[in-house]
Amino acid sequence: MIIVLKRDSTQEVVDHVVEKIKSAGLAVHISKGKERTIIGAIGDETLLGQISLEALPGVENVMPILKPYKLVSREFRKEASVLDINGVQIGDAVIQVIAGPCSVESREQLVDCAKKVKAAGASILRGGAFKPRTSPYDFQGLGVEGLKLLREAKKETGLPIISELMDPRDTEVVCEYVDIVQIGARNMQNFRLLTEVGKAKKPVLLKRGLSATIKEFLMSAEYIAAQGNSQIILCERGIRTFETATRNTLDLSAVPVLKEETHLPVFIDPSHAVGRWNLVLPLARAAVAVGADGLMIEVHPDPENALCDGAQSLKPTKFASLMEEVRRVAASIGRTL
Amino acid sequence: MIIVLKRDSTQEVVDHVVEKIKSAGLAVHISKGKERTIIGAIGDETLLGQISLEALPGVENVMPILKPYKLVSREFRKEASVLDINGVQIGDAVIQVIAGPCSVESREQLVDCAKKVKAAGASILRGGAFKPRTSPYDFQGLGVEGLKLLREAKKETGLPIISELMDPRDTEVVCEYVDIVQIGARNMQNFRLLTEVGKAKKPVLLKRGLSATIKEFLMSAEYIAAQGNSQIILCERGIRTFETATRNTLDLSAVPVLKEETHLPVFIDPSHAVGRWNLVLPLARAAVAVGADGLMIEVHPDPENALCDGAQSLKPTKFASLMEEVRRVAASIGRTL
Amino acid sequence: MIIVLKRDSTQEVVDHVVEKIKSAGLAVHISKGKERTIIGAIGDETLLGQISLEALPGVENVMPILKPYKLVSREFRKEASVLDINGVQIGDAVIQVIAGPCSVESREQLVDCAKKVKAAGASILRGGAFKPRTSPYDFQGLGVEGLKLLREAKKETGLPIISELMDPRDTEVVCEYVDIVQIGARNMQNFRLLTEVGKAKKPVLLKRGLSATIKEFLMSAEYIAAQGNSQIILCERGIRTFETATRNTLDLSAVPVLKEETHLPVFIDPSHAVGRWNLVLPLARAAVAVGADGLMIEVHPDPENALCDGAQSLKPTKFASLMEEVRRVAASIGRTL
Amino acid sequence: MIIVLKRDSTQEVVDHVVEKIKSAGLAVHISKGKERTIIGAIGDETLLGQISLEALPGVENVMPILKPYKLVSREFRKEASVLDINGVQIGDAVIQVIAGPCSVESREQLVDCAKKVKAAGASILRGGAFKPRTSPYDFQGLGVEGLKLLREAKKETGLPIISELMDPRDTEVVCEYVDIVQIGARNMQNFRLLTEVGKAKKPVLLKRGLSATIKEFLMSAEYIAAQGNSQIILCERGIRTFETATRNTLDLSAVPVLKEETHLPVFIDPSHAVGRWNLVLPLARAAVAVGADGLMIEVHPDPENALCDGAQSLKPTKFASLMEEVRRVAASIGRTL
Repeated sequence: MIIVLKRDSTQEVVDHVVEKIKSAGLAVHISKGKERTIIGAIGDETLLGQISLEALPGVENVMPILKPYKLVSREFRKEASVLDINGVQIGDAVIQVIAGPCSVESREQLVDCAKKVKAAGASILRGGAFKPRTSPYDFQGLGVEGLKLLREAKKETGLPIISELMDPRDTEVVCEYVDIVQIGARNMQNFRLLTEVGKAKKPVLLKRGLSATIKEFLMSAEYIAAQGNSQIILCERGIRTFETATRNTLDLSAVPVLKEETHLPVFIDPSHAVGRWNLVLPLARAAVAVGADGLMIEVHPDPENALCDGAQSLKPTKFASLMEEVRRVAASIGRTL
Repeated sequence: MIIVLKRDSTQEVVDHVVEKIKSAGLAVHISKGKERTIIGAIGDETLLGQISLEALPGVENVMPILKPYKLVSREFRKEASVLDINGVQIGDAVIQVIAGPCSVESREQLVDCAKKVKAAGASILRGGAFKPRTSPYDFQGLGVEGLKLLREAKKETGLPIISELMDPRDTEVVCEYVDIVQIGARNMQNFRLLTEVGKAKKPVLLKRGLSATIKEFLMSAEYIAAQGNSQIILCERGIRTFETATRNTLDLSAVPVLKEETHLPVFIDPSHAVGRWNLVLPLARAAVAVGADGLMIEVHPDPENALCDGAQSLKPTKFASLMEEVRRVAASIGRTL
Repeated sequence: MIIVLKRDSTQEVVDHVVEKIKSAGLAVHISKGKERTIIGAIGDETLLGQISLEALPGVENVMPILKPYKLVSREFRKEASVLDINGVQIGDAVIQVIAGPCSVESREQLVDCAKKVKAAGASILRGGAFKPRTSPYDFQGLGVEGLKLLREAKKETGLPIISELMDPRDTEVVCEYVDIVQIGARNMQNFRLLTEVGKAKKPVLLKRGLSATIKEFLMSAEYIAAQGNSQIILCERGIRTFETATRNTLDLSAVPVLKEETHLPVFIDPSHAVGRWNLVLPLARAAVAVGADGLMIEVHPDPENALCDGAQSLKPTKFASLMEEVRRVAASIGRTL
Repeated sequence: MIIVLKRDSTQEVVDHVVEKIKSAGLAVHISKGKERTIIGAIGDETLLGQISLEALPGVENVMPILKPYKLVSREFRKEASVLDINGVQIGDAVIQVIAGPCSVESREQLVDCAKKVKAAGASILRGGAFKPRTSPYDFQGLGVEGLKLLREAKKETGLPIISELMDPRDTEVVCEYVDIVQIGARNMQNFRLLTEVGKAKKPVLLKRGLSATIKEFLMSAEYIAAQGNSQIILCERGIRTFETATRNTLDLSAVPVLKEETHLPVFIDPSHAVGRWNLVLPLARAAVAVGADGLMIEVHPDPENALCDGAQSLKPTKFASLMEEVRRVAASIGRTL
């Protein structure tokens, strides 16, 4: 931690800051320049979490040096983490594709969709049973009934399944049915939920919040890891910016940045980011080219009658074309699909 | 709802859109211009929620006309809502000030602080018992023990108390202790939590999410109201922008916009928005001048030893000065404090 | 400047960074922690502008300590700058109001407007002669003809005038006619234009760019000051965020932040920030309460026939009411209008 | 144009709006719903530019239906525009790469760099002669001397050259030396400069402003086209968001959106977007995969001694590797490099 003091700080101010840092158990290093005195706090920066250094008189600025995340960092684990989800390897050279409808609507819709995305090459089935909706008047999902239909679709196709958990009280039932628990963007900083999925020891796909920095995203993963669960997939799905031509702005730069910072696998969900099905294909290609470990794509057998997110859902035939194109891009960078 | 069709759309495309709208129970109004055909869907727009109009072939753009919120809208209720919290009126000519520490740390800290903020003119005491923290390694609050201390402070001072609810499982216990339940910015779209506080029928202070539009903010209030609970206070606390000179950017324009759109009272929390105590005073003055119904201010008897948010906490003496200044601004616009 | 090296950096890496810093004429201070080596560069940081420290092998992060602006900083000049514009004092206890139409349209429109805003208490007349418009097909202003009309309005009312300069080639003619040269938000980083108004030695009102940080805003002011012209008024007029309920988001926190950082006076333009006339009044009150030295308000005798920005223009009677209200708020904080 | 009236608008309000629209020469279509009356203005929407519809009493909302850009739109020209720059075709199946240093520093630096980027496959040489710098104290470029060196590098390598124009007064001299005139992000809404390069009839590469919407970006291109110059290349180079892990956020979704909206070729500049050389490679691959027609990459023979932007400049050997990888990605989507 670097503490920059205000110009012309007195010795009393310096001594007070130094004393505070030492009382927290860190060593101190003072550097007096012409215009500013700078104090370095050397040691475990988390010990300083209990002191409000910025509230000390004479302090102009406090700059952390070390990363606030540990277990999920590349410094903690140099090699990439590979997750095994019922035999599907996530995080190695093979790019995995999660596909399926935004929400589970019926047995027919789901099983039909599952078979078609499997035929096209998807390796994991998605489907929302509990749906976070902006309006209380919109379809909220089938709940446990939806989870049961997902299990049936899994039986029919062999595809592992992923579905969203919205409420700590549903943790047990969701974990009973699914292979991967999804934490949605709006819950990325629902710390109680993160703690629960950490304790549950199930694989988790954690979506980045709409206005979460990459640092905050990793801190949320750290919440899960801190409970002993390191089976975490990170998923970028668009951030909120001033641009309204797409629903959100897909931050593909986040992929190589995350790859530097963490050992966890990184997925991209272009469907939610752009909100329009015809933009999903080019962004899926770009996601693979930038280095993502997997994709999450919304596919619906009948988008115009979808109960949610029809505008961004691909028909199964379009999805099959997407898989063809994405496969070629993957090959061009030495990966397979 | 206005549906704009793509240029040169065929009659078949028009007919298909028309049929969909009619099947949802709305009437249709067609307007053919030189370059575009526009279809108006007349009637209850929420009935269209189950159709993905944007997924229909030939549709270029879908523009809603009506507000998606009802119960919280000014159209639903023209006069301003006034809440009565143990005799404290919120939403009328008197501006109410909520003050207290970021987190409850000890009986002494809290009761001391409560007495001082009361003496300065605050009418409600705040204090975090369950704390949402970005890092799993930071102080997470005293939990139920904190709630008990809040109740003691209430007994000593008579001030009603507000504290944050983070988890649906804590709804009962939090509601037992507090007078106002706070929903934090990170949980603004935690729809299950909103539903629970809606059912609990306790007064709720709902903070705006860091990247929530005003429309989304009102939709979250609608979630609470839809459960039969209309005792809602809205609280703007800064939005996330590119500017880093302040922690967030306080959106004071939101106050008059909300006053147009909704009958609910609107508060401002300058402390969390700016993150630096010396900026809290001018922004508190501005919040009153712009028309806020109340303020929420962090006050700590010893900011440099605060377990959280010390940098933005005012000492009680500074808070007393703030109250003096804010009182004068309130008088200048015909309100009292 | 603080240079943080990557973990496990070799002595060779350290030596190379040290050598670079020394070759630029700065002293070096090395601090070896358990996890990171940190190098402090002590001296004039601008000398390091010619070295790409971040490009050096082994460098993880480079953190400047000193402010990049000098002439406009509070460190350079502790007391507030007061400008004298034809006898109108800007930056002292009196809050000054600039008012007038978005664009000069005719002699009648302008003189009528000028008389009315003067009667209501405005001290400076605004009016666009050269208009930056998003569309090439929109009205682009009357040009020099508009400047002449401004001069006539000045003769009739005695009000000093301000108008925008868009092109270095117009510097001479604009400076000949106006008392204050306005640099618009879209030209805040038009560095050639900044240099020209710096050389022209005319008072300048510099608007903050839509996505400019406060630091960049001050650097643009520094461009003008570096040419020997320190008669600069800063004007916040809304930044671009995700929120679309208002045209831009007025960043009132910028006022106290700027007051800390610089000795220059700070104005607020609520009209352009919100884009709707009925929001201008509450935000004008807030601007005064937060500590602005002045306001810039769009007033048009006939907003619905305005050639630009009618939606945000106040009628003269509404403006007169605004002045009444703002005057009371000013008095409540010990200032006059 | 759709004009939504406020609830319970009187017939007088309706008549007034109708009269205004008719007086501008458009036809009117009225649709009365249960809750709102909606007025459609049918005809050339640009004629409404001179009326402030939003300022009319009773108007709640004004929603344009038609695109504000014409000459640059896909509706105006269905097939993609292909530019011929000294034999280099831009906008067809071949992806073109512009490479070179941020700023021209010396003959040796530039010619060395030019030869190396050509050898690696770049087809156009970039180099800044006039440099827009945030600080007045930073290196501002060699000016005309830099243009002369660019011409020498062109002679030595045969590569066409591109360099930035910052000031209308330099239009003639810049056009004399370069093959493509670059308009930088900070000048995207410098409308006078756009008009000048429009008149100059030289090919133009227009960079997207840091906070410019796609619509505004196209309106700036329209400014150039409106002067009779349709040789325009659009270049996305990152937008400003809350994320600070990269300098800006590269908006790759803009590519397919622009491809729908306009016939102009679209380039990507990953170097300025991310600001760190090691992120340039993955984003260059993604840019090609998403459908960009070309790339703009900063290459410097000695990044750590670069006078500007060293941190984001690739060494020539790294650039050669990038070209290899990008070539494979291009092939995978049926394009060449």
